[in-house]
Amino acid sequence: MVSRNTPSILFSILICVVFIYGVHTSFSNDIPNTQNKDSAHVCNISLSLKKEIASYSTIVNKIIRTATGGRFKAKVWKELAFFVDKFGNRIAGSTNLENAINYMLDLLNSYNFDHVHGESVSTPHWVRGNESCELISPRVQKLAITGLGYSVGTNGTALEADVLVVQSFDELRQRASEAKDKIVVIAEDWLGSYGQTVVYRSHAAVEVARVGGLAALIRSVTPFSINSPHTGMMSYSDGVDKIPAAALTVEDAQMLLRMSKRGSPLRIKLYMEAQTYSNTVSRNTVAELTGTSQPEKVVVVSGHLDSWDVGQGAMDDGGGAFISWGALALLKILGLRPRRTIRAVLWTAEEVGLVGAEAYAI
Amino acid sequence: MVSRNTPSILFSILICVVFIYGVHTSFSNDIPNTQNKDSAHVCNISLSLKKEIASYSTIVNKIIRTATGGRFKAKVWKELAFFVDKFGNRIAGSTNLENAINYMLDLLNSYNFDHVHGESVSTPHWVRGNESCELISPRVQKLAITGLGYSVGTNGTALEADVLVVQSFDELRQRASEAKDKIVVIAEDWLGSYGQTVVYRSHAAVEVARVGGLAALIRSVTPFSINSPHTGMMSYSDGVDKIPAAALTVEDAQMLLRMSKRGSPLRIKLYMEAQTYSNTVSRNTVAELTGTSQPEKVVVVSGHLDSWDVGQGAMDDGGGAFISWGALALLKILGLRPRRTIRAVLWTAEEVGLVGAEAYAI
Repeated sequence: MVSRNTPSILFSILICVVFIYGVHTSFSNDIPNTQNKDSAHVCNISLSLKKEIASYSTIVNKIIRTATGGRFKAKVWKELAFFVDKFGNRIAGSTNLENAINYMLDLLNSYNFDHVHGESVSTPHWVRGNESCELISPRVQKLAITGLGYSVGTNGTALEADVLVVQSFDELRQRASEAKDKIVVIAEDWLGSYGQTVVYRSHAAVEVARVGGLAALIRSVTPFSINSPHTGMMSYSDGVDKIPAAALTVEDAQMLLRMSKRGSPLRIKLYMEAQTYSNTVSRNTVAELTGTSQPEKVVVVSGHLDSWDVGQGAMDDGGGAFISWGALALLKILGLRPRRTIRAVLWTAEEVGLVGAEAYAI
Repeated sequence: MVSRNTPSILFSILICVVFIYGVHTSFSNDIPNTQNKDSAHVCNISLSLKKEIASYSTIVNKIIRTATGGRFKAKVWKELAFFVDKFGNRIAGSTNLENAINYMLDLLNSYNFDHVHGESVSTPHWVRGNESCELISPRVQKLAITGLGYSVGTNGTALEADVLVVQSFDELRQRASEAKDKIVVIAEDWLGSYGQTVVYRSHAAVEVARVGGLAALIRSVTPFSINSPHTGMMSYSDGVDKIPAAALTVEDAQMLLRMSKRGSPLRIKLYMEAQTYSNTVSRNTVAELTGTSQPEKVVVVSGHLDSWDVGQGAMDDGGGAFISWGALALLKILGLRPRRTIRAVLWTAEEVGLVGAEAYAI
């Protein structure tokens, strides 16, 4: 899943500072009172909170200076680069992920954070294995694919079948009679956002199986690729056959659509070894700066340590995870102690369904 | 080679119109006389040519209307899409390329162009075969590569060796003593342009072999990749050992550089089946609109039909080739005949060293 929690380190730190320090008495006239303006632009924080925010300007400036030009400059980036280079991909269920978590626990302990520990989580264990796809007709052409997370494989043999190409679920339902025993390619358009388009990744296998299709190949959920198919999570539904599902590149999906529109009979051979094993045990990684006067009140900053298996998860979401504990590290290095506790949680198994975060919340 | 001849169809047609039709007497006051302005901005064409250009405004407008909104609208795009989908990659020496040339000759004949024919050219026949690359130490990681055009292979076995990473030829020469019996990675920066950076692709094998290296891996010549290594032509030099050369992705080259700077001993396993066979015979594809009053004067419009083997050559340079004969087709469809002959030449074997164009010029 593409991470939505990749704030800058400064943003994280400023949020922490605002919410964690107590109310002070000084007040800056620089902060305008906007309560009488158009409601859409009103800043609804209380006067006392505004005063509190203003009172931290000296500390905030110190944090900014240290992060952008001081001894903390580029530290998070370098720590993250070392981490992703050392471990590579960290998919849920893998030894790589558990090794990476062990490394993080050691690293967090080296900063003398409070309550550094792992919290056990039962996580899915999906393994891609080898996979390949080939256009057989109207000509032979290797097609780059990535199987979707949780997909079943092709039962140890290549699945070869005629192809139906559609551009939407609506078209698939309209042409349901043509889908039986076919590999269905959904060459959906990029619908303007990830949120709108990703339904094709999530539900293609179910929608195609419902009309009797043997496998679903979607266009990668992206406006742009360079022969680079994307993976991501999908789901099955009770009472509907589980069929293999994978993503094609943008280029290949568009080519198959063009061929189909010209009336060319298409045939594809698909091979996927993907399978899901029994759950394994992973860990959410936790570290704290204990609050001084209200330690029982906790502000959580977080990101996830797991990644998909086809990349290194540097931005999704190594960046988020490292910014989170980096915020604590920077406060610690500067000798700043919050009134409330700041807890960094580095989730496990986010990509396969927010598994670590759900375990934490329950 | 990245094509530099991808003008729009309108540009091609306007150039043709300007140079091929005769001098007319009408003159439009819309064309400013700029001869007295700053010399850097002076338009040095003669007054008679300005008059000639102006005289074609009615014809030019007709061409533009037909190409942008009339019956020729999107025609070149559709013809090109059909062509690349039908044949796929068209590397010099391949059956795909010769089939594509046969198709083009039929297509050009279907427009009743003049003197449609192929002109034989002896072309290189380099075949990539399978290739793979794997980082063995400090951790195991598959590295995406594409062998460079003309590279030799690894003699039927995997070549495994320690690695030296440098960022420039200068650094390679300074560290020459470290290169012996190593695979050398050149993680060059993107130097701001293709022209500046491509020297690393052209000369890496020779430079690395000169200091005793076993193989050369460069960063793809691009500012940006998505796990997508680039190919392109390289060269060897007399008296210097021929060693294998391939391109890494931007991401992997940068990762190896980071690892190297941290002092990690690197080891890589490289496998390439690439080899060069005896030359084969291909063809430049030619079609003409014979001039009415000065048929012996020829204006050439051109692009190349061959591509690299790892793509479909739609933009490099199917677009250029199809715009070229498309310019003739549009004039023909509009019943416009030039005074001078317009000749479309669809080169063969451009990617492997401008071979078709050189054969034509000699």
